[in-house]
Amino acid sequence: MKQNRYDDEAFFSKYSQMNRSVQGLAGAGEWHTLQPMLPDFEGKAVLDLGCGFGWHCQYAIEHGAASVVGVDISEKMLAVAREKTSGEIKYVCSPIEEVEFAEGSFDAVISSLAFHYLASFDEIARKVWTWLKPGGDFVFSAEHPVFTAQGSQDWQRDAQGMIEHFPVDNYFYSGRREANFLGETVIKYHRTLTDYFSALLQNGFEIRGVAEPQPSAEMLASVEGMQDELRRPMMLIVAARKTPA
Amino acid sequence: MKQNRYDDEAFFSKYSQMNRSVQGLAGAGEWHTLQPMLPDFEGKAVLDLGCGFGWHCQYAIEHGAASVVGVDISEKMLAVAREKTSGEIKYVCSPIEEVEFAEGSFDAVISSLAFHYLASFDEIARKVWTWLKPGGDFVFSAEHPVFTAQGSQDWQRDAQGMIEHFPVDNYFYSGRREANFLGETVIKYHRTLTDYFSALLQNGFEIRGVAEPQPSAEMLASVEGMQDELRRPMMLIVAARKTPA
Repeated sequence: MKQNRYDDEAFFSKYSQMNRSVQGLAGAGEWHTLQPMLPDFEGKAVLDLGCGFGWHCQYAIEHGAASVVGVDISEKMLAVAREKTSGEIKYVCSPIEEVEFAEGSFDAVISSLAFHYLASFDEIARKVWTWLKPGGDFVFSAEHPVFTAQGSQDWQRDAQGMIEHFPVDNYFYSGRREANFLGETVIKYHRTLTDYFSALLQNGFEIRGVAEPQPSAEMLASVEGMQDELRRPMMLIVAARKTPA
Repeated sequence: MKQNRYDDEAFFSKYSQMNRSVQGLAGAGEWHTLQPMLPDFEGKAVLDLGCGFGWHCQYAIEHGAASVVGVDISEKMLAVAREKTSGEIKYVCSPIEEVEFAEGSFDAVISSLAFHYLASFDEIARKVWTWLKPGGDFVFSAEHPVFTAQGSQDWQRDAQGMIEHFPVDNYFYSGRREANFLGETVIKYHRTLTDYFSALLQNGFEIRGVAEPQPSAEMLASVEGMQDELRRPMMLIVAARKTPA
């Protein structure tokens, strides 16, 4: 059974109150970095893996996508997505690991902060390669290896509770971690940078862009504690392309 | 004046006693990872930036390179290199930042653990692109952003001196750090993964391979404390290629 925290009532309720849930893309600290790395969606067949509330699906539709499929494990998330986003989007309730599409179904596959929930990135990279048309784009964000390595995902603090630094440990032990997110235990999978890049390169992707998003100047100025996000990387965004035939 | 620690008598003496100095490539923990990422040197014009004792230059010559140029800031290092390695290798004593070559001079540019001493990676990536022939290879190792971020390059230890974890801090503040290496203060430059990859991609390189070397099974079994190197990444190796014309 794949982990489905988002259908847990308490977790879902807390997630629904996060800025990124209430304000959508504008409330996501990485959006200003992710947006320019996305491909031109005009006329494209787009797949979003781990679509959640459907914000990225909606963005693709609004930017001219011919078709958009959003996949998510959580019925609760998709219920909100269906209500809040365009009826043109097709939502599929399924674990990302179990969904199947025909070869060459999509021009672009995107995924926002979902892959650190998957036990194997190599497997999904191989599938995405198959599902993409030659020259198709694959753009995803995931939690950064620095952020996932040790497991606690929490700062090292002194006796007064002040942040000292961010702890990295067990970096080369890729695999399962138990993290605390919104007060709940969540299973995540740490992998190294090498794991991510090797899976992409060995499966026939070309690397087009790499970014570790930083909070925008606006967020740095207005959100308390946001300055601390300059002390550690929390996310990794990669733009890749299936090598044209 | 560029930093030249290797011409400092005490530092040079200590560096000369390191495994990688005594045993050469076999004594370098990352060699088993770097070696398969190097291009075929047969008939190639090769440049090594920060060549030190010339081990990699010698490897290139022994693997059929038509010509090899090694650049290093330290006269002391080059004196040893000239004595121990092939007379076919041309050594140039210069800071990496100040050396100049004609456009399209080389088929391959390599660099081992030198770029974290340079204030700008973007500048050297741009130059290397110019010096390479179209389709030429650029393979380098540098200290890992996780290793350089906080600055001390030392473990967080408990009151008994036991390792707790490795500290990351100030990750997004790229730039100068004062690290301790062999008991001496050394100036290094931290940069993020994004800094490395963006400089390569924006200057027209294709990414061919990414690796974070781990100690070999043999080293893990035979060298005390080597297991701890699985807890943090210390080096980053990137294989890139100048996009063919």
